[in-house]
Amino acid sequence: MDILIDAFGGDHAPEEVIAGSIEALSERDDFNAVFVGKQDVIENLLKNYKYDQNRVRVIDAPDVITCEEEPTVAVRRKPNSSICVAFKELKENPNAGAFVSAGSTGAVLVGATLKLGRIKGINRPATSPILPTLIDGKNVILLDSGANADCKSINLVQFAIMGSCYAEAMGVENPKVALLSNGAEDEKGNMLNHESFPLLKQLKGVNFVGNVEARDILTGEYDVVVCDGFSGNIALKGIEGAISMLLKLLKQNIYSSVSGKIGGLFLKDTFKKLKLKLDYNNHGGALFLGVNKAVIKTHGSSKRTAIKNTVLQAAHYATFDISDRISAKLQLNEPEGNA
Amino acid sequence: MDILIDAFGGDHAPEEVIAGSIEALSERDDFNAVFVGKQDVIENLLKNYKYDQNRVRVIDAPDVITCEEEPTVAVRRKPNSSICVAFKELKENPNAGAFVSAGSTGAVLVGATLKLGRIKGINRPATSPILPTLIDGKNVILLDSGANADCKSINLVQFAIMGSCYAEAMGVENPKVALLSNGAEDEKGNMLNHESFPLLKQLKGVNFVGNVEARDILTGEYDVVVCDGFSGNIALKGIEGAISMLLKLLKQNIYSSVSGKIGGLFLKDTFKKLKLKLDYNNHGGALFLGVNKAVIKTHGSSKRTAIKNTVLQAAHYATFDISDRISAKLQLNEPEGNA
Repeated sequence: MDILIDAFGGDHAPEEVIAGSIEALSERDDFNAVFVGKQDVIENLLKNYKYDQNRVRVIDAPDVITCEEEPTVAVRRKPNSSICVAFKELKENPNAGAFVSAGSTGAVLVGATLKLGRIKGINRPATSPILPTLIDGKNVILLDSGANADCKSINLVQFAIMGSCYAEAMGVENPKVALLSNGAEDEKGNMLNHESFPLLKQLKGVNFVGNVEARDILTGEYDVVVCDGFSGNIALKGIEGAISMLLKLLKQNIYSSVSGKIGGLFLKDTFKKLKLKLDYNNHGGALFLGVNKAVIKTHGSSKRTAIKNTVLQAAHYATFDISDRISAKLQLNEPEGNA
Repeated sequence: MDILIDAFGGDHAPEEVIAGSIEALSERDDFNAVFVGKQDVIENLLKNYKYDQNRVRVIDAPDVITCEEEPTVAVRRKPNSSICVAFKELKENPNAGAFVSAGSTGAVLVGATLKLGRIKGINRPATSPILPTLIDGKNVILLDSGANADCKSINLVQFAIMGSCYAEAMGVENPKVALLSNGAEDEKGNMLNHESFPLLKQLKGVNFVGNVEARDILTGEYDVVVCDGFSGNIALKGIEGAISMLLKLLKQNIYSSVSGKIGGLFLKDTFKKLKLKLDYNNHGGALFLGVNKAVIKTHGSSKRTAIKNTVLQAAHYATFDISDRISAKLQLNEPEGNA
C-alpha cells in the first residue's frame, strides 16, 4: 500500500518530513512511502539515507501551497502543488491508501473535499484528532475540531456517526458518544445543541450518552465527543494552552530554587513520561473523517518524530474500513429505512 | 458598606459560608457581613465564632433555591429565598455594595437581571471570571463564560466594553481586548465572529487587538477575551479540565516510584505555589458584569477559603465605579454620538 506524503508541507519541510518518513519505513513493512513535491530536491535529500529503494517513490509537484494563501483559491490555482497532485494520485491509484501532510490545514481540507471527494451521504467532513485521557491507553476523539466553524444539527449527527465508526475501527466496543455542551444536564446547550440533542438520541448504531462539559473531555469516560468546529477548536486549543502553561510554570518554579532543581532531577522520568503522553508529537495527526480515503493532517511545526508517527498512523488507518462502516451506519439511519 | 452573603448557597452551606465570611471580616475592616438565609440556623452557627457584632447582620429568608430548580421559575416562585431576598436588599439598601453566592448560577443570574436590574444600554450581562496567566501578577478576564449560550454581535460588542471597563477599574491601563476565535488571523471565525470583528474594531475607548486562539488566552498578552457564553464556557472548563488532568497525572506518577516520591518531597513548595496560582479557591468568584451592583458567583463546591476570598473580592469590587465607567463608554459609542 502507498502512503502519499506531502514533502513540502510544514515549517520543517522538506528535510524533517523526509527524515521522519524514512524512519517510519523501518518500523512497519506493509507500506511504501511516496513523496510528493519538487522531485530534484527530494531526490537530493534522499541520498542522505539508507532505505529499501523498492519502498520509496517520488511524484513530482513543482508548486507549493503556503499557509498564507486562501485555501479554496490556492487549490484551484495550483493544480501542480504537492497537495493537489497528492490528492489526484490518492483518488486515481487504487493502491494509494492515505495522504499525510503538515501543510496548510485549509488547503488539505479543501483539496480532500474537492479532489478526493466526500463519502456519499456526508455533507461535511470533520477534523478528528485523538486526545490522551486520564486513563492509560484510553483515548478520546474530538470532532469537529476546526474544519467547520458553523454547523447545523445534521452535521453534528453525521459527526456522531463518523466518530462512532472511527472508534469502532480502532477496536472500541460500543463507543460512548457525547455532545460537548456548557453543562452536563440534558437541558444545557446553545440553540444548535438543543436541536441536535434529540436527533443524536434517536440515532441507531450510535451509543449517545448525553452532554459532556469541556472539563470532562479528558476523563476517559467518553470515546467520542461531538461539537461544531468552532467549539471543538476552542476546546482543543484551550486544553493545549493550559497544559503548555502548566508545564512552563512547573519548569520556571523548578529552576528557581535549589530544592526545586533537586526535585526536578528525581522527577526527570516522571516528566518524560508525562511529556510522552501529552506531547502531540507522539500522537501523530488528526484524521479528516468523511472523505473517501484516509487523510491525516499533522501540526505545521512537526519535526521528524511527529512525521514518523503520523506516517505510521496513516499506514494503520489505511487498513481500516471506516468509509464502509460510515456508509452502513448512515444507511441504518436513513429516514426511509433502507436497512 | 454592606456585603450581602447567600448563607444558603453552595454545597457546603451554611457552615463553610459563615466560617469563610467571618474570616474575611478580620482581613478587611471597611465592610459588614450581612448573611441572608434561615435566621435561626445562621444565628446558631454564629455562636461558634468571635467577631465584632456591629459588623454582622442577619436577614431572614426561609426559602432556598436549589441547583436542580429551573432558575426563572424558581426566582418567580420563591420570593422568600435567600437569593431573592438578597437582591431586594441589594437594590433597596443604598449602603449595600455587593452580593456573594455559591448557589445556583442560573438563579443568581436571573435574580440579578430581574430583581436588581441591568445597566442602562446593556442587553445581556455576562459572567466574567478572572484567570491567572503565565505572567506573574497578570490576569485575564474571560467574558461571557456561560450566562448567554447564544449571542449576537451587539452582545459581544457590549462584552468588550464591559470587560474593558472592568480591567480599567482594576488598574490596567488601556487594556488589550481580544476576540476568542479558531485562529489568530483576522479572517478566522464563525459567522458571529465575522459580524462582530469589524464592530469591535470600530469601538471607541476599547483597545481591540484582534483574534486570539484558545491556546493563547493564558499567555498574559491579553487583558480581556470576549466570546459568546457557550464558547467561553468551553474555553474555561477545557482549561480547568486540562490543568486538573495534568496535576492528577503528575501525582499518580510521583507516587508510583521511589525517586518520584523523593522528587515530590523536594518539589513540595513548587507544587504548593502552583496550586495557589491555579486553584480557583484563591481567585474568588466571577463577577456578573452588566447589572447595577457587584454580583459575584463563586463555585458551588467552595469551602471557607474560597468564600473568604470571594467576600474580600466583593468588598473590593464594591468600591469600583464599573457601572459609571460602562455607561460612559456606551455613550461614547452611541451611533448618534451624545459624547
